Amino acid sequence: MSKIEILKGNIIHAPVFGALEVLADGYIVLKDGVIEGLFRELPEEFSAGDVTDYADKLIVPSFSDMHLHAPQYPQLGMGLDLQLLEWLQKYTFVTEARFSDTEYAKRVYSKLAGNLVMNGTTRVSAYSSLHREATLVLMDELEKSGITGYVGKVNMDRNSPDNLRETTEESLRETRIWIEESLKRFKNIKPIITPRFTPSCSNKLMEGLGKLAAEYGLPVQSHLSENVDEVNWVKELHPDCEEYWQTYDKYGLFGSRTLMGHCVYSSKTERAAMKRNGVWVVHNPDSNINIASGVASVRIMLNEGLNVVLGSDIAGGASLSMMRIITGAIKTSKRNWLLTDKKEPFLTVAEAFYLATSAGARYFGVGPGFAKGDKLHALVLDDSAFPETLHSDPAQRLERILYMGDDRQIKERYSEGVRLQAEECGCKSAL
Amino acid sequence: MSKIEILKGNIIHAPVFGALEVLADGYIVLKDGVIEGLFRELPEEFSAGDVTDYADKLIVPSFSDMHLHAPQYPQLGMGLDLQLLEWLQKYTFVTEARFSDTEYAKRVYSKLAGNLVMNGTTRVSAYSSLHREATLVLMDELEKSGITGYVGKVNMDRNSPDNLRETTEESLRETRIWIEESLKRFKNIKPIITPRFTPSCSNKLMEGLGKLAAEYGLPVQSHLSENVDEVNWVKELHPDCEEYWQTYDKYGLFGSRTLMGHCVYSSKTERAAMKRNGVWVVHNPDSNINIASGVASVRIMLNEGLNVVLGSDIAGGASLSMMRIITGAIKTSKRNWLLTDKKEPFLTVAEAFYLATSAGARYFGVGPGFAKGDKLHALVLDDSAFPETLHSDPAQRLERILYMGDDRQIKERYSEGVRLQAEECGCKSAL
Repeated sequence: MSKIEILKGNIIHAPVFGALEVLADGYIVLKDGVIEGLFRELPEEFSAGDVTDYADKLIVPSFSDMHLHAPQYPQLGMGLDLQLLEWLQKYTFVTEARFSDTEYAKRVYSKLAGNLVMNGTTRVSAYSSLHREATLVLMDELEKSGITGYVGKVNMDRNSPDNLRETTEESLRETRIWIEESLKRFKNIKPIITPRFTPSCSNKLMEGLGKLAAEYGLPVQSHLSENVDEVNWVKELHPDCEEYWQTYDKYGLFGSRTLMGHCVYSSKTERAAMKRNGVWVVHNPDSNINIASGVASVRIMLNEGLNVVLGSDIAGGASLSMMRIITGAIKTSKRNWLLTDKKEPFLTVAEAFYLATSAGARYFGVGPGFAKGDKLHALVLDDSAFPETLHSDPAQRLERILYMGDDRQIKERYSEGVRLQAEECGCKSAL
Repeated sequence: MSKIEILKGNIIHAPVFGALEVLADGYIVLKDGVIEGLFRELPEEFSAGDVTDYADKLIVPSFSDMHLHAPQYPQLGMGLDLQLLEWLQKYTFVTEARFSDTEYAKRVYSKLAGNLVMNGTTRVSAYSSLHREATLVLMDELEKSGITGYVGKVNMDRNSPDNLRETTEESLRETRIWIEESLKRFKNIKPIITPRFTPSCSNKLMEGLGKLAAEYGLPVQSHLSENVDEVNWVKELHPDCEEYWQTYDKYGLFGSRTLMGHCVYSSKTERAAMKRNGVWVVHNPDSNINIASGVASVRIMLNEGLNVVLGSDIAGGASLSMMRIITGAIKTSKRNWLLTDKKEPFLTVAEAFYLATSAGARYFGVGPGFAKGDKLHALVLDDSAFPETLHSDPAQRLERILYMGDDRQIKERYSEGVRLQAEECGCKSAL
């Protein structure tokens, strides 16, 4: 006999891009954690259900962070005066190298997992380091904390420091072992094929990774056209390729389950290729400005019909909070609005909220919004600590929380239909 | 007999623009709350002093918020999808009008004062509404909370809703009464002449305000060249003036104690006039992008030798946290760095931190940094809740706190040489 659970509160979600649906004092009915429906009045048939009344609080979908580098968590918010290359040398590589120590990995990743949950992120697509054991530790910590999604063991067999480089054979062998083991061990965290980016992967490695993706039917994530030097470097490395995207495409790594981070400098033809292949663009506004890569135009990509999702891209991004990423995406788009003489409309709150919730969920084959048949991924938001205001409809309250709130406004978190316990998920640990 | 107090910890301040001075495990010696000196070793003569050991924590100067609209606090973080004019109509004017009710003002301003202190801001130059009583309430609440600086009763006798418009005579009469009373009543909060901006003040009012500023020897604050429509509007209103700045200058409102908010569209000649007159520019990066006014170039103004300070400009800005404003100024400058083909250097952490601490203090005639002879304004920062890192020199830790921290990292606050008690300053109330 299935369990009926009912959540009552001010429900806000984004079932379509650009519009918020608000059910003031509405009901979410769950059957064994699966959304049965949203209702303005509770239907008779569910009157026997167990109601959790969140009163005046907001109930919204939880966030998806579609591009983050887990091993860079210890360097978050540091070295951002440096140029990319110096930043990588002085901070990123030395930090990532530490994850050969699985004890260190366990300490850092358990804290990272707890803080993702604290910040309301229940779906991720994360980069690990190249270390197989540490990658399994990351998957384990995320799963224990209640987070779902993908984690990738990073592959790199060239153009990286000795202690962060594998031989091609080693890289492919380790990746296969990691895939096998992670598919066995984890329920909600799955492997994703992760060539770090073209400059750090030989053609032979790329070819092998393409075959592994096909053999196991796995998704793919990598970086594309993040900054000018990188784009030029890739041209030198692949004189046979007209554009960056082709260096992934020719090895079967550029399909409908591929996440490509950044795409700041993607040309019209590169964007057309992404559209044709159904590739997903991950926009990382905080990272793009912090390491001064450039300014992506989400509006143009959306107008062209590309799939766009959002990512924190820590530690290029300096915050795990998707609230900051949502407002960061809006701010970036306002800069573009100004630069185009107000011709390119900036992102609205409803649009950016959709990208951080519904769009991410869609990548995982569910949603958009609170969709019937999906396991509940939700946050309960409490703005009672904010100053009194004359503007208090639920949509205005959501906007205010996104702009001035943080994890302190998140009172409850649901993932895969289950309410996460602060103790279990580590939410108790402050950032 | 004077009281010697000694603070021990990792001292970081910005005595000069662009460079942080770090005294790891250093000492700040206070005599009756006044800085006697900074020392790496405690001099014998002070060995009898009462030492407060902050151990591994950071001790830094507190923040100055040099442009904020106190009555807009209730609308913080809302309506930011709207264009300026619609935003003013739908949110700002209706909210400001509420301050005819002094009880409402008391509730809102006591919370605002507490949250400024919570966020580490101990010096302000704030706009009130045009209401004399509510303005005195604001000054009272700020003083009680331990904040120092200036507050201005806003003047507006044209181009505003009926309930937010005074006659010229009324405006000048009320302003004089307010000045007299506030000079009598308050110790650390002083009046500042505040024509809202040229479009809302008739020439007669401007003239009268110039005379009041001269008569009482008061500083001045207003808005300058914030957005394109405003600049054009001012041109229409003052066909006799070549540029916006002259509409203030001709009434004696453009001198060495004048704060001008924004200056996004200030021409070379307008900037030269500010330099000549010693006018202070208040850069409000969060507000400029939220209401999409434009992108100011702090670097150019600094290179030309202008005085530049930072402001939150709530509620155009969506956060009271000067940490957000510091990183916002850096992000804005990185956008300019990209737009100028990397010719215009972006602001470093050390530079932006100087603008939010030392530069603001200099406007008030003290500093820069922890200067001998100044009353202590300081924060004690605790980053122990952050993930372990390989990069932990004090400057790196400060950068990390500025990028990923918030009021939770601020453990103690000193203002005017006194440690603020959470209970008194209202810091206990969450944002």
